[in-house]
Amino acid sequence: MIALDVMGGDRAPDATITGAIRWARSTGSKPILVGDLTIIHQLLDRGGEDPAAWTSVSAPVTVGMDAQPVKAIRSLPDASIRRCAELVKSGQAQALVSMGNTGAALAAGVIVVGRATGVERPGLAALLPGGPKPTLLIDVGANVEARPEHLRDFGLMGAIYQQQTFGIVEPRVGILSNGEEITKGSPLVRDAAVLLTESPLAFIGHVEPAVLYGDTADVIVCDGFTGNLVLKSLEATAEFAFDEVRKGVRRHPYALPGLALMYPALRSVRQSTDYAQYGGVPLLGVNGVVIIGHGRSNAVAVVNALNVAANGIRSNLVNRIAEGLTTIRR
Amino acid sequence: MIALDVMGGDRAPDATITGAIRWARSTGSKPILVGDLTIIHQLLDRGGEDPAAWTSVSAPVTVGMDAQPVKAIRSLPDASIRRCAELVKSGQAQALVSMGNTGAALAAGVIVVGRATGVERPGLAALLPGGPKPTLLIDVGANVEARPEHLRDFGLMGAIYQQQTFGIVEPRVGILSNGEEITKGSPLVRDAAVLLTESPLAFIGHVEPAVLYGDTADVIVCDGFTGNLVLKSLEATAEFAFDEVRKGVRRHPYALPGLALMYPALRSVRQSTDYAQYGGVPLLGVNGVVIIGHGRSNAVAVVNALNVAANGIRSNLVNRIAEGLTTIRR
Repeated sequence: MIALDVMGGDRAPDATITGAIRWARSTGSKPILVGDLTIIHQLLDRGGEDPAAWTSVSAPVTVGMDAQPVKAIRSLPDASIRRCAELVKSGQAQALVSMGNTGAALAAGVIVVGRATGVERPGLAALLPGGPKPTLLIDVGANVEARPEHLRDFGLMGAIYQQQTFGIVEPRVGILSNGEEITKGSPLVRDAAVLLTESPLAFIGHVEPAVLYGDTADVIVCDGFTGNLVLKSLEATAEFAFDEVRKGVRRHPYALPGLALMYPALRSVRQSTDYAQYGGVPLLGVNGVVIIGHGRSNAVAVVNALNVAANGIRSNLVNRIAEGLTTIRR
Repeated sequence: MIALDVMGGDRAPDATITGAIRWARSTGSKPILVGDLTIIHQLLDRGGEDPAAWTSVSAPVTVGMDAQPVKAIRSLPDASIRRCAELVKSGQAQALVSMGNTGAALAAGVIVVGRATGVERPGLAALLPGGPKPTLLIDVGANVEARPEHLRDFGLMGAIYQQQTFGIVEPRVGILSNGEEITKGSPLVRDAAVLLTESPLAFIGHVEPAVLYGDTADVIVCDGFTGNLVLKSLEATAEFAFDEVRKGVRRHPYALPGLALMYPALRSVRQSTDYAQYGGVPLLGVNGVVIIGHGRSNAVAVVNALNVAANGIRSNLVNRIAEGLTTIRR
């Protein structure tokens, strides 16, 4: 079962309930709806669904987008994201999906769901769709600080995710660095590179950010501070590009037909940095499938996130990561 | 006087000599030409200049783009970039300009020219032209590791550069972080933020990468590992955007007129991440003006870099940074 945080996200609860209904109709399974029961029943009813046929759990409190994540999770027992995490913790659900405050979903995953066996540090993974198959960047924000063995574990967790989700048989793992030479990188990078070389992973060495868009690596590891800044830099550049194009059209109205013709190419640029395109980013290394969608998610994104979560349950992602980490440490 | 590394850069020595001739004709000053004398004389001659009217210094060895920087500087006494640095060190020149191997120019600046009084760590600054005035990001690669006081000093050096070069009276200084809250950031970021708050600088706190494109900060400080990765992430995204647009045109030939119409807007996107637009990036905190241009620089970029260097000499940049650092430490 998947617990869906009905209250999280800029377009919730409309987008979340609509997404849940569409997903239920196409797959035949229903997620557990976690949120304000009155709203849930109203929206199900409006969507032509019988509320009695759905499992709903009352959690009327929404964690705001600018709330202090850890504090919110600890102090708000009725928060929808916390209740979702409790359902996973107790085994009533195997996965949770949230489009709400990323930090709060992260905190709920780490604190409430808890780490999987053998995992010291869960990592947040972003999927960058520039290449033929997405490149997974881990960690993009779960750990501001990390030790070399955490980066090696991120590599393993990311590789297992890529195997299970996209069928990449032997994922190529690189480490993000300020140069390709083995002498480059921070002490953390250099020490982690040694551990990755000794690991059973297909380690390809130091890689630079250009690789995020290519077909050179399937998994790229870094600490959460660096990964978060790199991801936000990609987003900021793509956002800036769109703004400039819009401004260009306003300044030169005769460019409007040009824009229309160029639209498919421009859309692919935007999608290339929209790491939510795959429905959401997985928090890897916790004791359940945790998928965190973008705050802007619409109903389609909610359907995608539910698919990703279902796939995580089906492929037994949590146990495979735990097994993998046990093997690597032997 | 400015020492110009004639041999450095993908288009050297043509672009460097052509740039030097154009700059000399427009300003009435001549740089010292450092490189292979036979080539220099030939190209001056071909450009309609009398070689005898120019100062040339023999340094026939070029440091390749993939040479090991520190090793090259130490082991190649006849390398043009090393000779340029020696001219600055001995006082025969006050500035050097190189379009060659960035690492080698950096090493020549730090090892041969040497640190300015009061400077512990020179920082490499990139100018990002997204906003109305460029935002200066420092350090983008001189120091893979840094301590909090180095980040504070980068803020001061960057602020002085922005004052002297772009007339920004009170530059706003931010620190690059994974969130705007004061509780965010690595320990380095949090400790440096305390020092910046206590400093006389106009410190605006933690900033995220989106600020690189706005008019929120004039100077953004970070360690050289993070800055290098952020800069390369911006470049990779802009590069990817251009490739996608090109591919889009190839797939949809009817989009070609669209591309032509959109060109001004797209060009502005590319320029926004082309930190070499201002002629080159300054290495701040060394005992002379060191301007490092992009390897791809053409003659126009060489002229711009020479202008930046001349401005650095005229505004007494080196002494102002030394004075500023002495004041901040009192």
